[in-house]
Amino acid sequence: MGGVSTTDRAEHERAEPERAERVPKQDRSRATRQKLLAAAVACLAEHGWAGSTVAVVAMRAGVSRGAAQHHFPTREDLFTAAVEYVAEERSRALRALFPEGAADRRAVVAALVDLYTGPLFRAALHLWVAASNEEQLRGRVTELEARVGRETHRIAVELLGADESRPGVRESVQGLLDMARGLGLANLLTDDAPRRERVVAQWAELLAAVLDAGPGDRD
Amino acid sequence: MGGVSTTDRAEHERAEPERAERVPKQDRSRATRQKLLAAAVACLAEHGWAGSTVAVVAMRAGVSRGAAQHHFPTREDLFTAAVEYVAEERSRALRALFPEGAADRRAVVAALVDLYTGPLFRAALHLWVAASNEEQLRGRVTELEARVGRETHRIAVELLGADESRPGVRESVQGLLDMARGLGLANLLTDDAPRRERVVAQWAELLAAVLDAGPGDRD
Repeated sequence: MGGVSTTDRAEHERAEPERAERVPKQDRSRATRQKLLAAAVACLAEHGWAGSTVAVVAMRAGVSRGAAQHHFPTREDLFTAAVEYVAEERSRALRALFPEGAADRRAVVAALVDLYTGPLFRAALHLWVAASNEEQLRGRVTELEARVGRETHRIAVELLGADESRPGVRESVQGLLDMARGLGLANLLTDDAPRRERVVAQWAELLAAVLDAGPGDRD
Repeated sequence: MGGVSTTDRAEHERAEPERAERVPKQDRSRATRQKLLAAAVACLAEHGWAGSTVAVVAMRAGVSRGAAQHHFPTREDLFTAAVEYVAEERSRALRALFPEGAADRRAVVAALVDLYTGPLFRAALHLWVAASNEEQLRGRVTELEARVGRETHRIAVELLGADESRPGVRESVQGLLDMARGLGLANLLTDDAPRRERVVAQWAELLAAVLDAGPGDRD
């Protein structure tokens, strides 16, 4: 941490000294951490893995490099934590959209697909692709991806009111999330929204037919 | 092209002088081009965009840097040509698998999904992700992606015997290809084959129901 610029630190920590004094130290630390995580995701989404270092993120977050390294000793720590944090925030936001649980399926399907078209998906995509070539990142990203995938599946099942004990239901929900991921990828270089809407409407209808089928309608 | 190593050139062009004399010049040029394209895809799939330069690819292909630059003046030329070339090869291979056209749907769906799990998909993915951050690559990759996408859709419609004049059919086929792309992404870090097979079997069944429905079964 010898490389910390005292100018940087002074700039940010002295910015609002009186208010800062009144905020408990633990809360300030939490706020710094969250600023770093948000900046890391934005940086990854815009510049990719190669252009994203702890120093670049610290500057973007308006945090000293020393403070950044205190929270996240390595680049891998920072970026996996960032993608995980934002994935959790998105899960919370998704549940908050449908507080009653099982809701209008078309709206739920559209909201699930939306998870894969914003900056979080873009950031996660850069992290996955980097992890496919970088050994020190691979294990952590694989584990993170499995965890986020399970959580997204759990939310999807809950919001769709899907009964996974019935044949084909689990695979249908998984296929929907795979399609959402593919739609996110199709949206990477161009705005694919009009086509995506039509595809999603059609697949929501197919999914509804599976979810609504009585136990005797299949096999 | 002043940087061409005469050692490299000598090594490769003199390798089998007698055979080389007997192969027409045009065919040798074509063979060199194809070696470069195959090496470019392998390089992109293994090392990503950052690790893929014309020099690295030339070395891997066993071609002099000068010869590589003769065929592909820029890095962008080489890599977009490589992804396009392999996509065309894959389309040809796919059609050759089902020479009679419309075939067993489950087999066609499985073969279509397979297009998204090999080294070509991996190479294309690296190119897309790099293009999302690099202006000089973006336009070309967007155009290439649209062309390959249209061609894949055309082959899918043909092999599935899908009648796109009927409502929902076009969107169902598109959604299938989006799902295949998402399954490819899920396969990037771990071997996802067992789960993928179950998802594909289920969605192949749902797709068959749409394709087989009579004109009066919907609306």
